[in-house]
Amino acid sequence: MATLGKGQKRIVKELDDTVAFWLKYSHDTTHGGFFTCLGRDGTVYDELKYVWLQGRQVWMYCRLYRTMERFRRPEILEAAKAGGAFLRRFARVSSGQWKCAFCLTRDGKAVKIQRTVFSECFYLLAMDELSRVTADEGMQLEAEQMMEQLIHWVRVDSSGLGRPQLPGDFPTNSMAVPMMLLCLVHQLSEGRGQEVAHKYSELTGWCVQQILQHVQRDGTAVLENVSLQGGELPGCLGRLQNPGHALEAGWFLLQLSAQQQDSELQRTAINKFVELPFQSGWDNGHGGLFYFLDVDGHCPTQLEWNMKLWWPHCEALIAFLMAYSQTKKPELLQRFSQVYEYTFNHFPDADSGEWFGYLTQEGKPALDLKGGPFKGFFHVPRCLYMCELMLDDLLANRD
Amino acid sequence: MATLGKGQKRIVKELDDTVAFWLKYSHDTTHGGFFTCLGRDGTVYDELKYVWLQGRQVWMYCRLYRTMERFRRPEILEAAKAGGAFLRRFARVSSGQWKCAFCLTRDGKAVKIQRTVFSECFYLLAMDELSRVTADEGMQLEAEQMMEQLIHWVRVDSSGLGRPQLPGDFPTNSMAVPMMLLCLVHQLSEGRGQEVAHKYSELTGWCVQQILQHVQRDGTAVLENVSLQGGELPGCLGRLQNPGHALEAGWFLLQLSAQQQDSELQRTAINKFVELPFQSGWDNGHGGLFYFLDVDGHCPTQLEWNMKLWWPHCEALIAFLMAYSQTKKPELLQRFSQVYEYTFNHFPDADSGEWFGYLTQEGKPALDLKGGPFKGFFHVPRCLYMCELMLDDLLANRD
Repeated sequence: MATLGKGQKRIVKELDDTVAFWLKYSHDTTHGGFFTCLGRDGTVYDELKYVWLQGRQVWMYCRLYRTMERFRRPEILEAAKAGGAFLRRFARVSSGQWKCAFCLTRDGKAVKIQRTVFSECFYLLAMDELSRVTADEGMQLEAEQMMEQLIHWVRVDSSGLGRPQLPGDFPTNSMAVPMMLLCLVHQLSEGRGQEVAHKYSELTGWCVQQILQHVQRDGTAVLENVSLQGGELPGCLGRLQNPGHALEAGWFLLQLSAQQQDSELQRTAINKFVELPFQSGWDNGHGGLFYFLDVDGHCPTQLEWNMKLWWPHCEALIAFLMAYSQTKKPELLQRFSQVYEYTFNHFPDADSGEWFGYLTQEGKPALDLKGGPFKGFFHVPRCLYMCELMLDDLLANRD
Repeated sequence: MATLGKGQKRIVKELDDTVAFWLKYSHDTTHGGFFTCLGRDGTVYDELKYVWLQGRQVWMYCRLYRTMERFRRPEILEAAKAGGAFLRRFARVSSGQWKCAFCLTRDGKAVKIQRTVFSECFYLLAMDELSRVTADEGMQLEAEQMMEQLIHWVRVDSSGLGRPQLPGDFPTNSMAVPMMLLCLVHQLSEGRGQEVAHKYSELTGWCVQQILQHVQRDGTAVLENVSLQGGELPGCLGRLQNPGHALEAGWFLLQLSAQQQDSELQRTAINKFVELPFQSGWDNGHGGLFYFLDVDGHCPTQLEWNMKLWWPHCEALIAFLMAYSQTKKPELLQRFSQVYEYTFNHFPDADSGEWFGYLTQEGKPALDLKGGPFKGFFHVPRCLYMCELMLDDLLANRD
């Protein structure tokens, strides 16, 4: 347990430093919202505003402000509010519509729209968490209405997303979708009592069932895309594994299993979504988790398949520490330590702060940027935040 | 010149081996068309058919059949015809429409449509070249009609491509578009006399002017995307450099300068589109050409920016050998040798044939596949074919 204490100190310091980095470099005090394209030293190298990352930063700021005493600081709240205002004003493509842009100019003009639901998911996360801090009931209502729209797109009719129906494009259960909906249910119902939990209970069951469909090959692999009936899809799409994503799903399921006191779900989460993706995803040669793999051992077609990305390691840290917290099985703590060693030896930038996001297979930074179109203030601080809370708990309750 | 002779022998052998590889592994004798997702040893790892690559393979087979005696073989013609029939039957999304799918199932159902013009460009290349071999006038007419549609989408009204007009999405002159149109003009007018050349002369001038707009920063850099007025665009998009693409544009312009006996265009092509991208794109540490660079030295956001891809090296070989052939300047032959050494020492797979497509910055294969969604029977054989012809000519006319 001594190593836990040492690990915790590092985690607290990394969280403080990460928050300081984004407070210092990412705020657009002219238009509100956040620059996320930040170079190694924090320099803004592009002013585009990616809606996923705007929403995530608002959410993370509010979560830190609301739940961790040392982050209850006015500058954090003000930045979150300005980010929320920017989103409300510009993210939805036109008034009365729920579809959000994927990317905006610095001053809020739509640049690109994705034909998926994720911009809207992160918009919702931002609105709900911000409404908890500001007690803005209109904002909370907007989050709930967005949820209804998302459920409609995912479960009833996706035509509003604008994807053409093509005869060769098999309808796919992509793991990201039920994962995101489960995450949103957790957000919307947290601390709001039985009534809200009840409202979403059927949806929760559906999300779990959809996620579990991804366990394939007689329980030996988690596949990223399956058919709507839960069968394997042909070709590369069907054989794709994304170990970091499976690990993230793992801790979403673990969190739910704890709420529901469902030991069967806990067992499945640990065996299939934590241990299995780690076993298949860990690079025994160089350490770290691969980004993509093909379950039959073919070479993935994604050029970045063998790179080591920051976020799968963040998700693995949360997953193993949560699994250990719930079970106290020493082998899970040992896995946490293994991922911890790799992560803290390779990703943090001792010179300029924050973490590198993209390493080569051998563990050298391939891109030295600290933020970009897909890396913002989210996976690193969420991981550090959750690990700090879990370590607090473990250390407070040590035997 | 002894080294040219030695290089030529290797090039002839590589072309023979490459043709043999694709003849052996890529033909779908059931549905027609080509598998392009081929593993290291030629195994088909995915049956999807990418329209770019179907069109390119038809074109390349016909070009080899038509212009190189040793490839005038029935199996090549039959495969090209079956590929052409597959494209005519399935590529256009619905009858009467010109829009083509990007990707089809093995049996021809549309999987994905891109909102760009490139599937249609490669469809046209296939139809025109195949019509030259088969003397099919209806097919040639279809190629010419597709050209009119492409010109309409590019120069008059792009709304038929399906991209929404968004207020923050600046209209962009992306180098690929005028390059492709110039390539198509060359295809349609080759050997067809003054009348056809005249028909496309205004378009040719427009393409050249559009390509030259990409020379920026007081003539010191070629940028991949500029505004419609020829100004620099903001952010990463505006600063992006793609050295291999600039080199490809270089030999397109050189080819035209020879046809038009335009020494000014020849000088610009060599100085700005051959020498400059090579200077900025060559990796002095590890050798080879980077895939993407940022003109201001920021880290590109493309995860594959520092990888060494096969096709920029193919384009560089053609560009330097053509520049040397036209000018006989020894420094251009020296560059050709430099690229040749890197290319032939790193890309060919001595064990299983054909070339690796994707190397790490250090030059190790990062993906061991021989074909995929973007690598087919095109850049390698086109490069070898063109270099063989140019070397024949140089060796026949040696002083």
